[in-house]
Amino acid sequence: MTTFTDQASDARLAARVLATAARAEKDTALHAMAAAVLADTATIMAANAEDVARAEAAGTDAPLIDRLRLTPERIEAMAAGLVDLAGLADPVGDVVRGWTNPNGVQVRQVRVPFGVVGIIFEARPNVTADAAGIAVKSGNAALLRGSSSALHSNQAIMAALRLGVAEAGLPVDAVQLVEGGREVTGEMMTARGLVDVLIPRGGAGLINAVVQGATVPVIETGTGNCHLFVDASADIEMALAIMLNAKVQRPSVCNALETLLVHADIASRFLPRALEALAEAGVTVHGTPDVAAYSAAVVPAGPHEFDAEYLTLDLAARTVKDLDEALAHIAAHSTGHSETIVTADLASAERFVAEVDAAAVLVNASSRFVDGGEFGFGSEIGISTQKLHARGPMALPEMTSTKYVLTGRGQTRA
Amino acid sequence: MTTFTDQASDARLAARVLATAARAEKDTALHAMAAAVLADTATIMAANAEDVARAEAAGTDAPLIDRLRLTPERIEAMAAGLVDLAGLADPVGDVVRGWTNPNGVQVRQVRVPFGVVGIIFEARPNVTADAAGIAVKSGNAALLRGSSSALHSNQAIMAALRLGVAEAGLPVDAVQLVEGGREVTGEMMTARGLVDVLIPRGGAGLINAVVQGATVPVIETGTGNCHLFVDASADIEMALAIMLNAKVQRPSVCNALETLLVHADIASRFLPRALEALAEAGVTVHGTPDVAAYSAAVVPAGPHEFDAEYLTLDLAARTVKDLDEALAHIAAHSTGHSETIVTADLASAERFVAEVDAAAVLVNASSRFVDGGEFGFGSEIGISTQKLHARGPMALPEMTSTKYVLTGRGQTRA
Repeated sequence: MTTFTDQASDARLAARVLATAARAEKDTALHAMAAAVLADTATIMAANAEDVARAEAAGTDAPLIDRLRLTPERIEAMAAGLVDLAGLADPVGDVVRGWTNPNGVQVRQVRVPFGVVGIIFEARPNVTADAAGIAVKSGNAALLRGSSSALHSNQAIMAALRLGVAEAGLPVDAVQLVEGGREVTGEMMTARGLVDVLIPRGGAGLINAVVQGATVPVIETGTGNCHLFVDASADIEMALAIMLNAKVQRPSVCNALETLLVHADIASRFLPRALEALAEAGVTVHGTPDVAAYSAAVVPAGPHEFDAEYLTLDLAARTVKDLDEALAHIAAHSTGHSETIVTADLASAERFVAEVDAAAVLVNASSRFVDGGEFGFGSEIGISTQKLHARGPMALPEMTSTKYVLTGRGQTRA
Repeated sequence: MTTFTDQASDARLAARVLATAARAEKDTALHAMAAAVLADTATIMAANAEDVARAEAAGTDAPLIDRLRLTPERIEAMAAGLVDLAGLADPVGDVVRGWTNPNGVQVRQVRVPFGVVGIIFEARPNVTADAAGIAVKSGNAALLRGSSSALHSNQAIMAALRLGVAEAGLPVDAVQLVEGGREVTGEMMTARGLVDVLIPRGGAGLINAVVQGATVPVIETGTGNCHLFVDASADIEMALAIMLNAKVQRPSVCNALETLLVHADIASRFLPRALEALAEAGVTVHGTPDVAAYSAAVVPAGPHEFDAEYLTLDLAARTVKDLDEALAHIAAHSTGHSETIVTADLASAERFVAEVDAAAVLVNASSRFVDGGEFGFGSEIGISTQKLHARGPMALPEMTSTKYVLTGRGQTRA
């Protein structure tokens, strides 16, 4: 039986080859992986039908089943994602900086892959192809641990991906699915020396479990309790447009709006229109009494409401007496993802930008722009809410480390 | 009684002020800290004498006592280090990159402090001033946990540092000494949300304990089992000079040479001279039989000898049959710090640089150059041997994170 340690050792050997593979080799593999996924559409669909049938029999919620379900269109999108990765620049080998020391020793800091990256993720089977592609492009071997509810789908997708990798002449163990019971997740989290970095992709529970249990370095792709502060000087039309866009355009994602803070001086002009517009858009507002005063539709905010990441058409709302109170509320409740101010006042904008501690701080723009695609990164492994290594949208360069290369002609230190 | 949580909460409040302090304010504080340390020389010396007397009574080894002992010169050096920091560029506020999205939203990635940095370190009391200075300069609040053997020295130094911080008008809790029993170290390692980053500075035992116990993100400043591979094509004079410099110039540091690998084809010409030179320099060579064949002074290498970080005038040595065997040996035994090849062959140099997985890889130069000072960084918090965030010498920019600032005129996502 193949143990996790066997798999990780195979991954390390594959990683040594991948680390020095040229971009052309990796791009060829990505195209072959895409072709193999498309060629295996029927097999993948059949495997997915098995997972979906089990989930339905187990009485799983409809939204979860929707995330689990594959269609020919979703499989095409997976393949297209792999082809898109082939078109992106290769971060490996980039010289980040370089100089010559006074003694003539030349120093270069060069981007190199991490080595073996472990990714632990939840239901969506498309993450299997996406994460494997990002790993291959960035020269890393990937150990992918999906949820058991998507096991058959992930196995079928992985079989196709490995076929593509092998066809392109790269080591097949560059991408592997990690199967087995819960204890295997524990092995993965503590595999120092075998796994270089662990990236959990999923809800707060998964991320917290990994952070608590891991001795391997972790990159958190975190949750977003994103705030919008409507300042006293805000343009009301602009504030309404940004609020609706951030809340409604795609409520299920981490950069969607979850908490509305309204300056008391603008509340009587802004809140009636805001509450009406939110109600029309199907949003339930969970408000403090000062907000509820403007609309009978407002539901009283519970004690933990301002710490919730709803990911649904719900919004917590309160008024604040000034910018200081807004900043203090955000400091107390923010998950450090994306925080927005709408204001016409330069000093307020500058204080908000300087003092809010988050991966992204926005002035007069929708938090939905905090996204690798919108940033022009072409791919995104997630949005980091931690401060080490990468903060904000993570793309291919964030999937690498660096190495210093020193070249001399026999110099020694005095 | 002040608990660790109280201290950390005070540090967070101080960090909010430090994060937006101008460079001039921080530099003023560094000068005031230096002046206060000098003014308190007598008090610090008296406190240190108490620590040294206790250590001597406890039968502590002479080298440890030497590291613990302060002299007026060492106190002057501490103060000079703080003044030097004032002269360095401030990384905070640097715009790492920036662009304007097609929709007109402006994006900037800006350097910001981590917030609260915890540093856990061993005997040397000068680390207290050094780490506090680096934290203040990089806009971070520092929680410093020194060893109990240096408690009185650290208390006296910290009192002076805090006086300087307060005189300069910055919050005094920007720098704090964390006292108390072992359980406090545990609290510090698991203080997620209060401590942003933890940096252990010390031996392998300390670093391992922190890595195993911490849920706060850790930057490892690691141990160095540094290798030198003398290739078949090496210039023998160059190889001898680099070997001696890397081993002997300062054996107690992490970038010193610990393992010598000699290509079998050059062994009969290189090893007799190398062993003679090492013996003259007082180095004990722990060798395999193929090395011992050249000198009776060679001690047989024990089973774990090739994994040792001696930090003394000892050196493990073996021959290898080719570059592949050298690469395999390094892959199996390296701690990922600094690895060197001496060669005249371009292909060997290129393979070594590409395939060795370490913070620094050197061709024809001494590993003693892998150092923040030698790199021109001006200060160094340590040399990271991990792959996340920072790898190699860590200076002021490595003590920061980044924040994305997005500025629009009401843009929303389509």
